[in-house]
Amino acid sequence: MSAAADEDSLRRALAQKQSSIDVQGGAVRQLKSSGASKPDVEAAVKALNALKLEKTSIESQLQAALAGGSSSCNRDAFRQAVVNTLERRLFFIPSFKIYRGVAGLYDYGPPGCSVKSNVLAFWRQHFVLEENMLEVDCPCVTPEVVLKASGHVEKFTDLMVKDEKTGTCYRADHLLKDYCKEKLEKDFSLSAEKAAEMKHILAVLDDLSAEQLGAKIKEYGITAPDTKNPLSDPYPFNLMFQTSIGPSGVSPGYMRPETAQGIFVNFKDLYYYNGNKLPFAAAQIGQAFRNEISPRQGLLRVREFTLAEIEHFVDPQNKSHPKFSDVAKLEFLMFPRDEQVSGQSAKKLQLGEAVSRGTVNNETLGYFIGRVYLFLTRLGIDKDRLRFRQHLANEMAHYAADCWDAEIESSYGWIECVGIADRSAYDLCAHSEKSSVALVASEKFSEPREVEKLAITPIKKELGLAFKGNQKMVTEALEAMEEKVAMEMKADLESKGEVEFHVCTLGKNVTIKKNMVYISKEIKKEHQRVFTPSVIEPSFGIGRIIYCLYEHSFYTRPSKAGDEQLNVFRFQPLVAPIKCTVFPLVQNQQYEEVAKLISKSFTVAGISHKIDITGTSIGKRYARTDELGVPFAITVDSTSSVTVRERDSKDQVRVDVEKVSSVVREVTDGVISWADVLKMYPLHSSGTAEE
Amino acid sequence: MSAAADEDSLRRALAQKQSSIDVQGGAVRQLKSSGASKPDVEAAVKALNALKLEKTSIESQLQAALAGGSSSCNRDAFRQAVVNTLERRLFFIPSFKIYRGVAGLYDYGPPGCSVKSNVLAFWRQHFVLEENMLEVDCPCVTPEVVLKASGHVEKFTDLMVKDEKTGTCYRADHLLKDYCKEKLEKDFSLSAEKAAEMKHILAVLDDLSAEQLGAKIKEYGITAPDTKNPLSDPYPFNLMFQTSIGPSGVSPGYMRPETAQGIFVNFKDLYYYNGNKLPFAAAQIGQAFRNEISPRQGLLRVREFTLAEIEHFVDPQNKSHPKFSDVAKLEFLMFPRDEQVSGQSAKKLQLGEAVSRGTVNNETLGYFIGRVYLFLTRLGIDKDRLRFRQHLANEMAHYAADCWDAEIESSYGWIECVGIADRSAYDLCAHSEKSSVALVASEKFSEPREVEKLAITPIKKELGLAFKGNQKMVTEALEAMEEKVAMEMKADLESKGEVEFHVCTLGKNVTIKKNMVYISKEIKKEHQRVFTPSVIEPSFGIGRIIYCLYEHSFYTRPSKAGDEQLNVFRFQPLVAPIKCTVFPLVQNQQYEEVAKLISKSFTVAGISHKIDITGTSIGKRYARTDELGVPFAITVDSTSSVTVRERDSKDQVRVDVEKVSSVVREVTDGVISWADVLKMYPLHSSGTAEE
Repeated sequence: MSAAADEDSLRRALAQKQSSIDVQGGAVRQLKSSGASKPDVEAAVKALNALKLEKTSIESQLQAALAGGSSSCNRDAFRQAVVNTLERRLFFIPSFKIYRGVAGLYDYGPPGCSVKSNVLAFWRQHFVLEENMLEVDCPCVTPEVVLKASGHVEKFTDLMVKDEKTGTCYRADHLLKDYCKEKLEKDFSLSAEKAAEMKHILAVLDDLSAEQLGAKIKEYGITAPDTKNPLSDPYPFNLMFQTSIGPSGVSPGYMRPETAQGIFVNFKDLYYYNGNKLPFAAAQIGQAFRNEISPRQGLLRVREFTLAEIEHFVDPQNKSHPKFSDVAKLEFLMFPRDEQVSGQSAKKLQLGEAVSRGTVNNETLGYFIGRVYLFLTRLGIDKDRLRFRQHLANEMAHYAADCWDAEIESSYGWIECVGIADRSAYDLCAHSEKSSVALVASEKFSEPREVEKLAITPIKKELGLAFKGNQKMVTEALEAMEEKVAMEMKADLESKGEVEFHVCTLGKNVTIKKNMVYISKEIKKEHQRVFTPSVIEPSFGIGRIIYCLYEHSFYTRPSKAGDEQLNVFRFQPLVAPIKCTVFPLVQNQQYEEVAKLISKSFTVAGISHKIDITGTSIGKRYARTDELGVPFAITVDSTSSVTVRERDSKDQVRVDVEKVSSVVREVTDGVISWADVLKMYPLHSSGTAEE
Repeated sequence: MSAAADEDSLRRALAQKQSSIDVQGGAVRQLKSSGASKPDVEAAVKALNALKLEKTSIESQLQAALAGGSSSCNRDAFRQAVVNTLERRLFFIPSFKIYRGVAGLYDYGPPGCSVKSNVLAFWRQHFVLEENMLEVDCPCVTPEVVLKASGHVEKFTDLMVKDEKTGTCYRADHLLKDYCKEKLEKDFSLSAEKAAEMKHILAVLDDLSAEQLGAKIKEYGITAPDTKNPLSDPYPFNLMFQTSIGPSGVSPGYMRPETAQGIFVNFKDLYYYNGNKLPFAAAQIGQAFRNEISPRQGLLRVREFTLAEIEHFVDPQNKSHPKFSDVAKLEFLMFPRDEQVSGQSAKKLQLGEAVSRGTVNNETLGYFIGRVYLFLTRLGIDKDRLRFRQHLANEMAHYAADCWDAEIESSYGWIECVGIADRSAYDLCAHSEKSSVALVASEKFSEPREVEKLAITPIKKELGLAFKGNQKMVTEALEAMEEKVAMEMKADLESKGEVEFHVCTLGKNVTIKKNMVYISKEIKKEHQRVFTPSVIEPSFGIGRIIYCLYEHSFYTRPSKAGDEQLNVFRFQPLVAPIKCTVFPLVQNQQYEEVAKLISKSFTVAGISHKIDITGTSIGKRYARTDELGVPFAITVDSTSSVTVRERDSKDQVRVDVEKVSSVVREVTDGVISWADVLKMYPLHSSGTAEE
């Protein structure tokens, strides 16, 4: 029996038990008031108490069922441990903390900043360099016209309600969600029907209109959480930070909500730069902004964040990918639409099969799904807590051909970290239309092809006689007719001899006669095909990936003395903010000299490291570096050779001073593994004595 | 004779010649009207024509003198050639071009983006890693309170005038500057006195107040350039992009005008992270914004730009630097205050001497000047067109101890690209005061020290009797007195017995009597010294540095046939957007296989490269890559060995296919030089045959 069915039957049992209690309670009262015998009353009370005991038992079962497999209490405690460590070690800092901060804005402190730049460097290596992408760097300040074309001015909104007395703003869906969750989790008197209704609301929350949300808020009597005041009806609030460009105040602008638009508007130049050849991809890393109504979920939902976006432009008639075979054999958790709808869970699929069966729309989309999988797992994301979830049909924009999110499981649940969408020709068409610049590609035919083509030939002499100075506008309007309109005109002219025709540029109708225009379909030879490319867009929320990476990398282990739990981040060397620490075993000039020498060689090699000559105990120093996720530590305990310790295994080897920096370099660069190091160098015998 | 003196005497000569012409012209007219003899009239006309000829000759001399050594016409043509190449090859793209762009916003296209990320990577290596700086990454969106504390809300303004009819805005100083320059360059009838006045205006332009600017604009009758309409009086316009944080509209925010504030507000945490030790430096790379009134100077004055800033925190009593000796021997162009005031030019100084003589205020400031010099010249900035100019006394903020700008000479003149300022304790004090969080450091004494300390002891009983409910405010005001005020009060109380005292929090004066407060100086033992650190701030305008680098790297050379000039960027491998191109000599499957193999090995090594199998002539392909500044090109002309060509010398060597990628890698990484390569491998005999 599924957890949901379990919960349902428990709620029904609870309601039944409550009505039995009510009945029995009535019986007791009646017996008492009718002066029944003491044994009779006692028996009835005993029965009532038994019923109440049974109810309590069902309530505990329901509570257990609601908590599910993973207790939310444990998840919260784990998250708190991670976040405390991150904040204490300055991986992040609430921005403008001394001024009591701003919700949804965070700084990356030194180790966080380093992790971020490592992740971005690997992203560049893994995507931009590997695929020869064209990277661009566009401004954050964006004029309104661009974001009108993209639809953001109209549609990039959340529904908001206001406390009618204080004016405090809330996200309407959040209030409804909180209300339903609270009811479901804590109100045991909730009927099974009501519980089902609320679960349905939670499932379709994203799809509710302002009216539907407002109606439910009214129906449930939801009030402002802080004041219990009544709430306004929900209304849309645009999430873009607005500003004004230049001093005049007449040029509205926004801080970009995504980096993609900067690439779309440059399509023509980029296509030319690529030698007028498809497919090609452009990429951009940069800040994006989202003026959240009331940011929650800490580092996951913020008002300013780094996006890394790829726009891969491809011929809509050929979405195969030459390197698809490189990833076709990969197997990982996928969660196709059908499985979601039928209530199944994500399952392991082979990417090649997913594409050949049509689960994934095309090879290029599949290729990027595979590359994203490799990117995330190489960073250190746990592959068993990573799934690719396909968008449901109603979840996708109408123009999208297919869309998959890379979701990573965290203490907040499954979090969308990368979106991989086939957006068809939507964006380029929108900007072509608004800017009147054709954002198209062309394919030259090796041999000319015959195609049936509409031919509209205005007879200028007749048009000139009829329309004088307006002739040019009428001519242009005739030539611009779409095929359907033109063929209707042809038919009308043949049957009636004349037809009314609306000329936009004149703002009125004119009468077109049969002798004024010649319309036909002709067979023409074409030398090329002109079309709007499709775009496949992998879009990475860098901050979210990094936060999930923190959770997946964090663990605790007892100290040597066993008296406390020590925190460790098991960062890959690729990601680790600092690759190696160097410290002298004791404060001693000779050892410090050696430590400085090693430090200098790391600086030259561009390896980030830290030298620690504070003289605290080695054990404490190890604990400090483990908490920063430093993979290797060098202890200088002689002038000829030193001890190198690996973070997770705590294994230690002895390496000559002259060799140590190149060994650490090779193992952090991934040229050799730690296992190789263990084979090549003797284990340090005194082992973990110092810890 | 200096150019200025020359110009002055020419203007005087011109005015003299004009009056001679006027006199002689009058004489001719009088002779004619009085019916003088033909020979007399002819002689007078001849004399007049001779005078006019002499005037023309003086005019050309003046024109030449104004053009100075470097003709502005040449500079403009050079700049146009550079900018055309940059734009055609997509080093940059005017942002939102298909919508006719936005003044002052530019995209970095693929090669520009690559140059930028190379420059930033080198910056991180040269500064952050080398000095173990604490890098942070703060948001662009900044709440008002932070920028009020920093002074930006009040003072980050330019003076603006409006066209009184159309409302178009102009920078007041730009209009006055343009007017004076135009007059000086083109109006030969300008008197020497007027010319001197306008030169003085140009020199002090930055210091003029709104009233002074307005008066000059009125005096010269300057009107709106586009319409000739009258202009408003100048008024300040704040250059920050304003926005609103959150949905309520009551939390104003700005896009940060610099990255530094994010570091200052985090001082306390960063100091702790550094083990509560000074000195240390924090660094940040990020976007900054400046809503220019009317952006000019193309890529140099933009509305959004990347800054890289360092805040080095140091004990104000000890600004020595342990690594100063590493840079003390450097010699380069410096332009101290005295040389500027006395009209001399920049001269070569040894940094060590400049510091020891006090020309540069302290070692730490000097150390950063040296490091900036190394950074810029290693990037490829021409050392003879780089100077360090000290701020004049009136140019610096009142709190600054010393300030030097790294200026690079470009076609626009000398451009400020890096500012290196000793800002004393100003910023930390401002945020301490506004946030009430003490941003201070402390130095523990090895032995306690005796210090004379002001002690103010309010007598609460007496104050309570006298001031009742106001007692607390009076007490706090007394305790907050500065030493000077307190000692004056002590003297007054002793001589007069009472004194008037202003209490801010009450907004009025109260009478303090002798028995209400005890003021003394006491000897106390102190165990530590608590102080606000000084900050030394090197601040890099990355976009400006890159633009100057483009100009310094650009040259042209004739094509092989001599029929055209080809463009070349002589980028260092460190900076070059693409390190190497690979192309098969002819279209041929075997050669293409080899080319792809080499390409693959570059990808693995993380070396950006381009493979070109278009089959156009080798000469054309070289020209194309030279224009992108690609340092090396590999031509696959056999399956066993290939030709490697260096861009500037056009030297070619033959290298085995297996070795080629490691050779190119070593020479681009700077492990070996091209001269080394020439010694190690045979010159390609058929040489430049293909070009």
